[in-house]
Amino acid sequence: MTEDLRFNIGLKNLKKVDDKAGQNVIESLTGISEDIGRYIIEFAFGDIYERDVLDLKQREMITITSLLTQGDTSPQLDVHINGSLNVGLTREQIIETFIQAIPYVGFPKVLNAVTVAKKVFTDIDNNKI
Amino acid sequence: MTEDLRFNIGLKNLKKVDDKAGQNVIESLTGISEDIGRYIIEFAFGDIYERDVLDLKQREMITITSLLTQGDTSPQLDVHINGSLNVGLTREQIIETFIQAIPYVGFPKVLNAVTVAKKVFTDIDNNKI
Amino acid sequence: MTEDLRFNIGLKNLKKVDDKAGQNVIESLTGISEDIGRYIIEFAFGDIYERDVLDLKQREMITITSLLTQGDTSPQLDVHINGSLNVGLTREQIIETFIQAIPYVGFPKVLNAVTVAKKVFTDIDNNKI
Amino acid sequence: MTEDLRFNIGLKNLKKVDDKAGQNVIESLTGISEDIGRYIIEFAFGDIYERDVLDLKQREMITITSLLTQGDTSPQLDVHINGSLNVGLTREQIIETFIQAIPYVGFPKVLNAVTVAKKVFTDIDNNKI
Amino acid sequence: MTEDLRFNIGLKNLKKVDDKAGQNVIESLTGISEDIGRYIIEFAFGDIYERDVLDLKQREMITITSLLTQGDTSPQLDVHINGSLNVGLTREQIIETFIQAIPYVGFPKVLNAVTVAKKVFTDIDNNKI
Amino acid sequence: MTEDLRFNIGLKNLKKVDDKAGQNVIESLTGISEDIGRYIIEFAFGDIYERDVLDLKQREMITITSLLTQGDTSPQLDVHINGSLNVGLTREQIIETFIQAIPYVGFPKVLNAVTVAKKVFTDIDNNKI
Repeated sequence: MTEDLRFNIGLKNLKKVDDKAGQNVIESLTGISEDIGRYIIEFAFGDIYERDVLDLKQREMITITSLLTQGDTSPQLDVHINGSLNVGLTREQIIETFIQAIPYVGFPKVLNAVTVAKKVFTDIDNNKI
Repeated sequence: MTEDLRFNIGLKNLKKVDDKAGQNVIESLTGISEDIGRYIIEFAFGDIYERDVLDLKQREMITITSLLTQGDTSPQLDVHINGSLNVGLTREQIIETFIQAIPYVGFPKVLNAVTVAKKVFTDIDNNKI
Repeated sequence: MTEDLRFNIGLKNLKKVDDKAGQNVIESLTGISEDIGRYIIEFAFGDIYERDVLDLKQREMITITSLLTQGDTSPQLDVHINGSLNVGLTREQIIETFIQAIPYVGFPKVLNAVTVAKKVFTDIDNNKI
Repeated sequence: MTEDLRFNIGLKNLKKVDDKAGQNVIESLTGISEDIGRYIIEFAFGDIYERDVLDLKQREMITITSLLTQGDTSPQLDVHINGSLNVGLTREQIIETFIQAIPYVGFPKVLNAVTVAKKVFTDIDNNKI
Repeated sequence: MTEDLRFNIGLKNLKKVDDKAGQNVIESLTGISEDIGRYIIEFAFGDIYERDVLDLKQREMITITSLLTQGDTSPQLDVHINGSLNVGLTREQIIETFIQAIPYVGFPKVLNAVTVAKKVFTDIDNNKI
Repeated sequence: MTEDLRFNIGLKNLKKVDDKAGQNVIESLTGISEDIGRYIIEFAFGDIYERDVLDLKQREMITITSLLTQGDTSPQLDVHINGSLNVGLTREQIIETFIQAIPYVGFPKVLNAVTVAKKVFTDIDNNKI
């Protein structure tokens, strides 16, 4: 598989997960490190998201759990809470994913993730009007 | 809902997830802090695992992702990799969950989780003979 | 003990620690996850803060140490620095708690916690005028 | 204050907290980095532990909380659970410190700390016979 | 070596790394904890940065790697990205340092560090005009 | 660039850094997840280690700093302390890298890294005899 192919597959998967936010991340790297943007597309979305065994809903559930658990990831949680909705998870499933993490990480990290989710949900509702 | 009820519900859910390992954790707390064991059963397994919206397979997938991400959780990963199998996740899905975390946590934490999974799978295979 | 009782005990302890900030956290969860707010009251403040052996000053000292150490907890540190003052710790004891953590976590996390404390102390002084 | 004075003050405080384990740490650095051992004595035990405002019991309570929270600190928790006992904290207070951390860090880190405490307590009991 | 000497050596090294930002950190501690500022100068910049074996470029490369890896360190990364430039690392070397960390920490922490670097570089370019 | 080429470049770089330990990691994944081993070679060693701007000594210095800082990485630190020696860092430079991290991460993580280094150095010395 050539790198061009990996890049195109990655771009396709990134569009499925979060087209607009993904573009923002890539653009924010312009002039400082286009290569990081390229690795995100080729490796994260080209190699990993393209794999079998788990579907995109499961992959996004894993992603928001990992982001919540490591902390200091509000910008990334914003992208992937949107991504979770885009691939078909419901708001209730996203919040429930955070609740399932409480016994393993405690309340502060979960509250931080809920704060991001609340902002994402509110923005969507306001744009709908 | 009384605490007795929460405890009994928790015990029921713990048995579904990992009866033997769960018992080991509770027993290991005897004489040093039975209360922590009681909170694990009442709160983690009684309040949280009993909730709707996500099924036990999804809950275990979230749990092993959170454990992998925070690190220094080999004993807990051992319990919940077994738990993941007990509630119906396949070995392939467990490993794939770890692979999905690579772009978000890097290789070292994923390799540590795979090391625990390999031990769990090998133990199961050896006991089957 | 019924859940109602746990909730009422939790509410009583939350009021002792930080009535206003606690209310803010609970209210911020309205419409997105009232259950998380309920677990914070029932489990954290109902089950744990109600226990014997340590007093509220010691519990808040432990809490701000844990929040400082895990990082990315400014909103929670804000609540519990206020809480520490409310249960009787002095400003000097709070800062000294942070200083004791330096050899174990390094300077960056300690500086982040001092930044939150400075804001809390300044807000209190400004409101006093 | 000269460095010799800081070193001697540090050594005095280290002896109060955990003479034997402290010596082991320092000796384990012989031939690889005596300077790290010297900084631990001069800075951690000479500068920080010598300060006013908090007593040694409070300082050890803060230390074991920070070690529990950051994870991957079993050898250091071993030293400071012994240290906590040496400066006058009871076993119940040590375990209760860990329990107070549950809502903030979740169960896995607390279980890991209890595992170390159990080993320390058992070793003490066995040596007493 | 007396403390005065350590302080003066530390101040000299701090000036080399980041005079202005260093002063800001020290001043921000005035009235809340001058001692923490003193320890940063005496211990971090007086004891550690003064050592042989590694030069200031290598020390700043290690520092920004450690700050990136632990997360929640934007204010400190700001200081030490400036510091890295001050001691002679190029912008390309700073970004490449972050890229080298990708396989070990994943993309989110690296993106957070690049965001800080982008702000630092832009501020420098704007002030140059 | 085809994937075969990336794999071969990665293998070449892995051999430079730590041939034997690298092989062990790859082999340990046989039968459980060959794909993770392939990603380590293709992405970490094929894409990242192959880049310009920093040399292998600098890359290994960054790697051991990141591993030390995140904690729970003893097996990976073992590989990359060996790797650091293989690409030309001295034992003194490796220990000095750890010492530079003290002000940013505190003593426990540094002591853990020194423990791994001591084992690596001792093994090398014993095998030399």
